[in-house]
Amino acid sequence: MSLISLLLNAALSGVGSWICYRLILSYIPIFIQRKMYGNDQCKVSNDPVPEPMGVICAAVYLIVMFLFIPVPFFEWIGADIIFPYARLLAILSGLISISTAILLGFADDMLDLRWRHKLLFPTLSSLPLLMVYYVSGNSTTVIVPSVLRTFLSSAGFPFVVPVTVNIFYLYYVFMGMVIVFCTNAINILAGINGLESGQSVVIAFSIIVFNIVQLVRVDAQYWHHLVSLYFLIPFASITLVLYHFNKYPAKVFVGDTFCYWAGMTLAVVSILGHFSKTLMLFLIPQTFNFLYSIPQLFHFVPCPRHRLPKFDAESDKLFMSTAVFKKSELKSLGKISLTVFRLAGLLYQREFEKDGETWLEINNLTIINLVLKFCGPMKESRLTLTLLGLQVLGSFFAFFVRFYLASVFYESVE
Amino acid sequence: MSLISLLLNAALSGVGSWICYRLILSYIPIFIQRKMYGNDQCKVSNDPVPEPMGVICAAVYLIVMFLFIPVPFFEWIGADIIFPYARLLAILSGLISISTAILLGFADDMLDLRWRHKLLFPTLSSLPLLMVYYVSGNSTTVIVPSVLRTFLSSAGFPFVVPVTVNIFYLYYVFMGMVIVFCTNAINILAGINGLESGQSVVIAFSIIVFNIVQLVRVDAQYWHHLVSLYFLIPFASITLVLYHFNKYPAKVFVGDTFCYWAGMTLAVVSILGHFSKTLMLFLIPQTFNFLYSIPQLFHFVPCPRHRLPKFDAESDKLFMSTAVFKKSELKSLGKISLTVFRLAGLLYQREFEKDGETWLEINNLTIINLVLKFCGPMKESRLTLTLLGLQVLGSFFAFFVRFYLASVFYESVE
Repeated sequence: MSLISLLLNAALSGVGSWICYRLILSYIPIFIQRKMYGNDQCKVSNDPVPEPMGVICAAVYLIVMFLFIPVPFFEWIGADIIFPYARLLAILSGLISISTAILLGFADDMLDLRWRHKLLFPTLSSLPLLMVYYVSGNSTTVIVPSVLRTFLSSAGFPFVVPVTVNIFYLYYVFMGMVIVFCTNAINILAGINGLESGQSVVIAFSIIVFNIVQLVRVDAQYWHHLVSLYFLIPFASITLVLYHFNKYPAKVFVGDTFCYWAGMTLAVVSILGHFSKTLMLFLIPQTFNFLYSIPQLFHFVPCPRHRLPKFDAESDKLFMSTAVFKKSELKSLGKISLTVFRLAGLLYQREFEKDGETWLEINNLTIINLVLKFCGPMKESRLTLTLLGLQVLGSFFAFFVRFYLASVFYESVE
Repeated sequence: MSLISLLLNAALSGVGSWICYRLILSYIPIFIQRKMYGNDQCKVSNDPVPEPMGVICAAVYLIVMFLFIPVPFFEWIGADIIFPYARLLAILSGLISISTAILLGFADDMLDLRWRHKLLFPTLSSLPLLMVYYVSGNSTTVIVPSVLRTFLSSAGFPFVVPVTVNIFYLYYVFMGMVIVFCTNAINILAGINGLESGQSVVIAFSIIVFNIVQLVRVDAQYWHHLVSLYFLIPFASITLVLYHFNKYPAKVFVGDTFCYWAGMTLAVVSILGHFSKTLMLFLIPQTFNFLYSIPQLFHFVPCPRHRLPKFDAESDKLFMSTAVFKKSELKSLGKISLTVFRLAGLLYQREFEKDGETWLEINNLTIINLVLKFCGPMKESRLTLTLLGLQVLGSFFAFFVRFYLASVFYESVE
């Protein structure tokens, strides 16, 4: 039964992707006509690029999900057994979070919302999801690493250290943070052709593989990995279509709409699938990029309006972009973070004198500029592929940690 | 307990309305700056009017709902009784339909969607709602009017006519049609300052009164009227704020976003509240306007691009607008419908000769122009108030039919 529902899900995803392909083609001129476009800052030509095309894909995704929802429940409909309400609740609460994230993203594309609204809204829209998690009696226990348990016992810890600990409300706080982080994670690692859609495709397919492996390996948690696939397969296949249009040279831009939709979908599947900690493993590049960006995002270090790489029309290559500021402007937190980055070899820095003052030039703190610092200037298409390659490497690392290392650190991990 | 939850709902609605008021004020300049505005065609000045402000109100509405959802379930949380999953499902499925309707409306405002997409999307987005209705074992029986039963029996109908008939799938078809009709009903009766928001306020408050009356009168269906109030009170109070800005002279336009949101909210409460037939009574002006518009909407009769009343700058009054076409252009269905309207006294028609052909001039077929035909030209503010007055009269008529006439036609109606 669950195999049939997966096949139906895949079939609907295929049809959805085809419709999405046709719709994008037919909406490209409409976007231009309605002046919904951006300009590609890394190109010689100044042609308008329709944006946010993510809203068309997201609408198709929602339609696929609406049509699919009844499928996993066919065996119950009309039968004289108790209907699995909690399962339908899980799916609907996930869809609410996703559809409101799409709305938020679209509003952001159109209106440039304020930061506090952008953080508040996904938090609130995930309340139904967390509430359903709560009332469905889902676990809030975490497994204590065996290493830690051995260490605590040998260190004379006065209690017997349990194998699992119930962290109750902290678990909800953690899930809430996963949601807020995810909805913004893709949006932060963005700006060059094909990067937003490409990384989402890599992450989505990685999690699909993870879910299938878990379905084959483990009997428990069966439903959770299944529902995660129900959400992911349509997402991955529709996003693949979007990538086709968004890859270098971009014919469409995905917009914040796509970034929020993608982030929220990943967060939702990880919560419904009970693998929010594992999800973070698949988001290592995004997490690194976020941590690396913090000094500029929180203005410990001066931050220019755009942190995109610099485009050089003559060589058709992208160069690392930099921020230039007086050394005296640097706050103490900024000094500390730059020192840490420099010691770790993660910073380009140049000091020079001008007008009797000491000035600093550093690379803008994004993983995109960091790649350019290490590899030198490169064409945009190669830069995207390099970053997507890092994402694929990250996925391999995630599998290694999740399936090999975890079994070392935890006695029993499913 | 349910009184406390209603009070909390009202309190949240109050806070939401205040926030909505502040947000509209702060987003008015942002809309203008982002070129999201319309021009008021019934004013001398050509100042831009921010549109679609409905998206801000809808976002606040969703936040109020997200915060409120846990409230009706407080008594179950942590208690050792079975959680009322079906109730939470009902609320979440309603929210899905509403949030996707908002998304559709916003996309329509930005992109001018095609008609077939505008009809398809709400149909599909209501699938979760109908599915929840199905799996929750809700009734699909309708009561047979006693007059009809008496008539059928006396006419020698070969079977005993039952008091109630289960119409099964037809009931779902009916609910689906209610949803599609509602999402477009407000949008069709629109175009002058304060009309869209005003009519929604009148309808919402009428249904609130209806729900409260039913809560007091009837013991059964208690939960259904309660959940309907949970959705309606925030909607009515936030829409009242929108009306304040949208009324003559309009400082904001509500946009399709509002019309779809309002229509879907009304449809959802009527389905969750089990009074979708009664809802249609409160939508008599909209239904009449739709039926009256059909010849032009379906192009039986030539339809100009805009059917708004004509603005006369000198008198500052609105005049009935007309469509002019050659008599020979009229199709047979068009001829029939115009004859019916003329015989019913619902048509202004003038025939004249030009260039050797017979031409026809008729009023554009909307209830707005019909009011102007009967009452003569009037100022925009008075026209809106007249139409809202009709809506209030319609509500009184609806109460009369629902509470008085129904008890005559049906033996037992709750």
